Amino acid sequence: MTQQSQSSPPRVAILMGSRSDLETMNHASDMLKKLQIVHEVRILSAHRATDALLEYVGDAEKRGIQVIIAGAGGAAHLAGVIAAKTMLPVLGVPMQSKALQGMDSLLSIVQMPKGIPVGTLAIGTAGAANAGLLAAAILALSDHGVRDRLTAFREEQTKKVLADQFVS
Amino acid sequence: MTQQSQSSPPRVAILMGSRSDLETMNHASDMLKKLQIVHEVRILSAHRATDALLEYVGDAEKRGIQVIIAGAGGAAHLAGVIAAKTMLPVLGVPMQSKALQGMDSLLSIVQMPKGIPVGTLAIGTAGAANAGLLAAAILALSDHGVRDRLTAFREEQTKKVLADQFVS
Amino acid sequence: MTQQSQSSPPRVAILMGSRSDLETMNHASDMLKKLQIVHEVRILSAHRATDALLEYVGDAEKRGIQVIIAGAGGAAHLAGVIAAKTMLPVLGVPMQSKALQGMDSLLSIVQMPKGIPVGTLAIGTAGAANAGLLAAAILALSDHGVRDRLTAFREEQTKKVLADQFVS
Amino acid sequence: MTQQSQSSPPRVAILMGSRSDLETMNHASDMLKKLQIVHEVRILSAHRATDALLEYVGDAEKRGIQVIIAGAGGAAHLAGVIAAKTMLPVLGVPMQSKALQGMDSLLSIVQMPKGIPVGTLAIGTAGAANAGLLAAAILALSDHGVRDRLTAFREEQTKKVLADQFVS
Amino acid sequence: MTQQSQSSPPRVAILMGSRSDLETMNHASDMLKKLQIVHEVRILSAHRATDALLEYVGDAEKRGIQVIIAGAGGAAHLAGVIAAKTMLPVLGVPMQSKALQGMDSLLSIVQMPKGIPVGTLAIGTAGAANAGLLAAAILALSDHGVRDRLTAFREEQTKKVLADQFVS
Amino acid sequence: MTQQSQSSPPRVAILMGSRSDLETMNHASDMLKKLQIVHEVRILSAHRATDALLEYVGDAEKRGIQVIIAGAGGAAHLAGVIAAKTMLPVLGVPMQSKALQGMDSLLSIVQMPKGIPVGTLAIGTAGAANAGLLAAAILALSDHGVRDRLTAFREEQTKKVLADQFVS
Amino acid sequence: MTQQSQSSPPRVAILMGSRSDLETMNHASDMLKKLQIVHEVRILSAHRATDALLEYVGDAEKRGIQVIIAGAGGAAHLAGVIAAKTMLPVLGVPMQSKALQGMDSLLSIVQMPKGIPVGTLAIGTAGAANAGLLAAAILALSDHGVRDRLTAFREEQTKKVLADQFVS
Amino acid sequence: MTQQSQSSPPRVAILMGSRSDLETMNHASDMLKKLQIVHEVRILSAHRATDALLEYVGDAEKRGIQVIIAGAGGAAHLAGVIAAKTMLPVLGVPMQSKALQGMDSLLSIVQMPKGIPVGTLAIGTAGAANAGLLAAAILALSDHGVRDRLTAFREEQTKKVLADQFVS
Repeated sequence: MTQQSQSSPPRVAILMGSRSDLETMNHASDMLKKLQIVHEVRILSAHRATDALLEYVGDAEKRGIQVIIAGAGGAAHLAGVIAAKTMLPVLGVPMQSKALQGMDSLLSIVQMPKGIPVGTLAIGTAGAANAGLLAAAILALSDHGVRDRLTAFREEQTKKVLADQFVS
Repeated sequence: MTQQSQSSPPRVAILMGSRSDLETMNHASDMLKKLQIVHEVRILSAHRATDALLEYVGDAEKRGIQVIIAGAGGAAHLAGVIAAKTMLPVLGVPMQSKALQGMDSLLSIVQMPKGIPVGTLAIGTAGAANAGLLAAAILALSDHGVRDRLTAFREEQTKKVLADQFVS
Repeated sequence: MTQQSQSSPPRVAILMGSRSDLETMNHASDMLKKLQIVHEVRILSAHRATDALLEYVGDAEKRGIQVIIAGAGGAAHLAGVIAAKTMLPVLGVPMQSKALQGMDSLLSIVQMPKGIPVGTLAIGTAGAANAGLLAAAILALSDHGVRDRLTAFREEQTKKVLADQFVS
Repeated sequence: MTQQSQSSPPRVAILMGSRSDLETMNHASDMLKKLQIVHEVRILSAHRATDALLEYVGDAEKRGIQVIIAGAGGAAHLAGVIAAKTMLPVLGVPMQSKALQGMDSLLSIVQMPKGIPVGTLAIGTAGAANAGLLAAAILALSDHGVRDRLTAFREEQTKKVLADQFVS
Repeated sequence: MTQQSQSSPPRVAILMGSRSDLETMNHASDMLKKLQIVHEVRILSAHRATDALLEYVGDAEKRGIQVIIAGAGGAAHLAGVIAAKTMLPVLGVPMQSKALQGMDSLLSIVQMPKGIPVGTLAIGTAGAANAGLLAAAILALSDHGVRDRLTAFREEQTKKVLADQFVS
Repeated sequence: MTQQSQSSPPRVAILMGSRSDLETMNHASDMLKKLQIVHEVRILSAHRATDALLEYVGDAEKRGIQVIIAGAGGAAHLAGVIAAKTMLPVLGVPMQSKALQGMDSLLSIVQMPKGIPVGTLAIGTAGAANAGLLAAAILALSDHGVRDRLTAFREEQTKKVLADQFVS
Repeated sequence: MTQQSQSSPPRVAILMGSRSDLETMNHASDMLKKLQIVHEVRILSAHRATDALLEYVGDAEKRGIQVIIAGAGGAAHLAGVIAAKTMLPVLGVPMQSKALQGMDSLLSIVQMPKGIPVGTLAIGTAGAANAGLLAAAILALSDHGVRDRLTAFREEQTKKVLADQFVS
Repeated sequence: MTQQSQSSPPRVAILMGSRSDLETMNHASDMLKKLQIVHEVRILSAHRATDALLEYVGDAEKRGIQVIIAGAGGAAHLAGVIAAKTMLPVLGVPMQSKALQGMDSLLSIVQMPKGIPVGTLAIGTAGAANAGLLAAAILALSDHGVRDRLTAFREEQTKKVLADQFVS
């Protein structure tokens, strides 16, 4: 659980298939911290810890989780398996894999069959950060605080970009 | 506006870049109808109707839209341009394009840079239907009616699949 | 259960994610019939029937299943989810998907992480037939009858090919 | 504005989506400098600075810009969004992206729908330099000075290549 | 030479590698006719008619050609070979090839080395039509008539798109 | 022959096309060592040592080999050529090749025609390790010792993953 | 053996992996007939008729074969296996496969390791015809008759292309 | 001209598009040196030195060249342009390009249209070395010395591979 608001239960879960995904998925966590959204981070492989994963996902909604972010690489089944077990919105982040550069991860996550959706973000760190932002956008629909902080983030982002626009 | 609840304002907007995308995007509309979520459908190309698109998106939140679904093909910029102009959750549906079978549409939608997220679904009709389901999952976080109908849909789906499992 | 030996329990299970995969997966079943290997065929989506699938796989070994063949398309998680729940050999058959021609199915099945193997065959009907043959080769290691029939099949195959070699 | 002719207004605009594209896009700028074509360089993301970008493009023609070069990576919408807002010739340069090596950038730029053209160059620095050359070729149609310098550049290029042809 | 202005010499040349490309390249011709730009159309393979092609290109500028559009498929060398022999702006249109759907054509045209630019459009008919539009945009820089007709075309296009925007 | 049981004949053969594949294929060997399965390792190119390869494969079954693992890269014909000469189960491991990252190796191994199956694992070291595991799963069908060690391995693997699941 | 010169032994062998490749490979045969080069055509799968193939290739040179053309699809090992057994020039023709459109065939044929070359032609019928032409070019180095007929073919080809160059 | 036989005219020409290709193409030259085949090496871009290239190719046969090897990268037109101007066998070597790893080079070289063949080798150094070997195989058809040296090379290669086959 993040330090921002130890007393509140986490609203977003960031799951990933392997500890080697943590460096990428920290970009999701950092974005949520910046927006002061309490979240938790777990490493739970769809293949090597299936039962624990399914148990975790089965309890998630009751525990107050509202959005689940899942990062995985290669034959990346994590997001799809989670989406199969919950009706919460599930966001998938494809890892940049070693051989195929994340094309395998991307297709394994995005090409879900009709009936079980996963909202997929870009391969790698940009996708992880954007999963945090999209989770925030979802929470912002019913949470004015998140909405205000998201608005501020977006305005600041545009301001920075504009301040840096002149080259020659 | 759909027939289900003519009096309520639409909560989901389905946009697409070209009338030729309509057959695919109707799968999103059909899913929302099935879940009784009021929505509207517009054809507004990011390239051939930029100003009208930006105006539409700028007004969307005030008009009660909570999720925007955007379907486009080829160099599919629609979802990204929408996401740049709103903080509402934006879901992208890549069309199955003629030459490159939707790989161009997929990469143009999913590979968004850090800061502007688009939750991307599968190429084609499965992706369109799932965009409707994911929009419903997002609305369900604060709407018990949607949540109940979504639960019923998922249970019915599983029931159908199980009833059809035996081959030999 | 196939007709060949109604009294024996099935030794191979052919699972698939959707009834639309049946036409392709029948090539696996036909091959097993030709080799007189008792098998059963089930449609059990990893996403739309997760619990039933896991239950089926959990019981498979006790029921006498020795090899599981899994066919799925798109974000094809079926074989991987099965392999996560059993120590039986799992063979994966990628469906030729509509948009990406099976490249998505192939990568989703073959690119499994270290620790959970899936032996993957070719995309489509050739892969399905070969999954039947590879299952037979595995059973043949401890079953002389299967071995003899497999040998006969291979010899007949070569004979046919040689008989048809002359064009001009 | 480049140093070559401080008094003349820029005739070519080089835009890019992010400061990280600058190293690549400097190859366009260097080529224009070599051909003494006054130009300006701006970093204006289609997604993070949409309004400023549209304003810039809306004014470009009045300010004397004749060709716009746009470099972007990933879901590279910059060139398309510019082309939607101007009738000036727009040239697109796909960045070599981290995960997919520029294939995403290329398809996002080149696969524009009928009605809004972007002339796309190669991925990376060769494409950036060539965007400068193609802009020069366009200006040369009505500017003899540019034409002469372009001719000289091409002749010198061939001369260098020929001087270096012998290996063994 | 097109019928619009039999007395004026052609200003745009549309070349293609094979008569089988004509159906696609007619979209370029149709666009130029719509914009009343006199042009000529030739089938001149880079491989099967190299000398004639080089002779044609060598004379083009003297004959009044200002932009060359080149459509080819597979190992599509036409645009590159033309660009090597002229300083006129060269626009390339990748044909949708049989086996690889135009990916081969696209890469063969767009990935030109530093020094010889080809402005590449989308694969197939959209690319061909857009090559006509981009040629018009280039001519419009010094021809008010073309500019006015291009402006009218673009406005009409937007008007049509907007008139067709409402679905439900 | 591995050191674990010098007296028993090898039951698994690990073949590869080139000494440069050894570093990857050692992951298969290491897995088999961990599971105490006697095996042997040979470098026998399908192209540069065809006769020796065919002779080796022709004798394999008589010598007690039950599963053959074949690793190769590029136009990777090793597994297919082996499968053509034996009825033993053949498992293929695609090397991560230099230019195309293993996509060439993968397709050359997995896309076998109907009649000659190769069970293909993931590209690179994960695939090599999993080939060892799948070979073990095959042997476990008739060897309780292997089965017990495989079960222990899988349980330990899950335990490790679960012990490492908490991040924040 | 072709009808042109029944008394002479065949100088080119056209082999293919399956009768389904014959329609494509007939384009190689037709080209050789046009150039009056005696050849023979055999269907000899590298996988389903390995021994017969190796025997055929082992005898080829003694029988007067000078060039071998090999067409195959999917995991297309035919050309590579032939090249491993002969020092004659081997030309490979990738079939347009069903799922992956020939990309698998192409990579399986062209990506041969150092030491065993296969000269690879285009996917499908163009590649088959060109394999015939390249075989002729090789024979023409020491056969003036072939050279004269090849020259005539090439001149006629250019003449036809030029006669058909005018469109408008 | 190589040192082996200064008095004989070169029989093979190795051309490449850029000096940066030399490191790769030296593998072709080294192979020819090893087989004592006199050859020459030239850097002659199809795009930046078209006239010189065509002149060189036009004279090649008269000068005694029997096989032309052409290495190029990206939109690699060199081999195709050469093949268009000569009836000598032309062998193409795709460079491993920076962004797309040689996939662009490969498709630009191998996908030649019917009528103008290029025998294409693997991407990068293996392809360059094999181009040398294939050139030797072609020359060996009418040169016993080359044939003997090629035979010796192949036997030595197999011997080396066999000597190195034992790992454990």
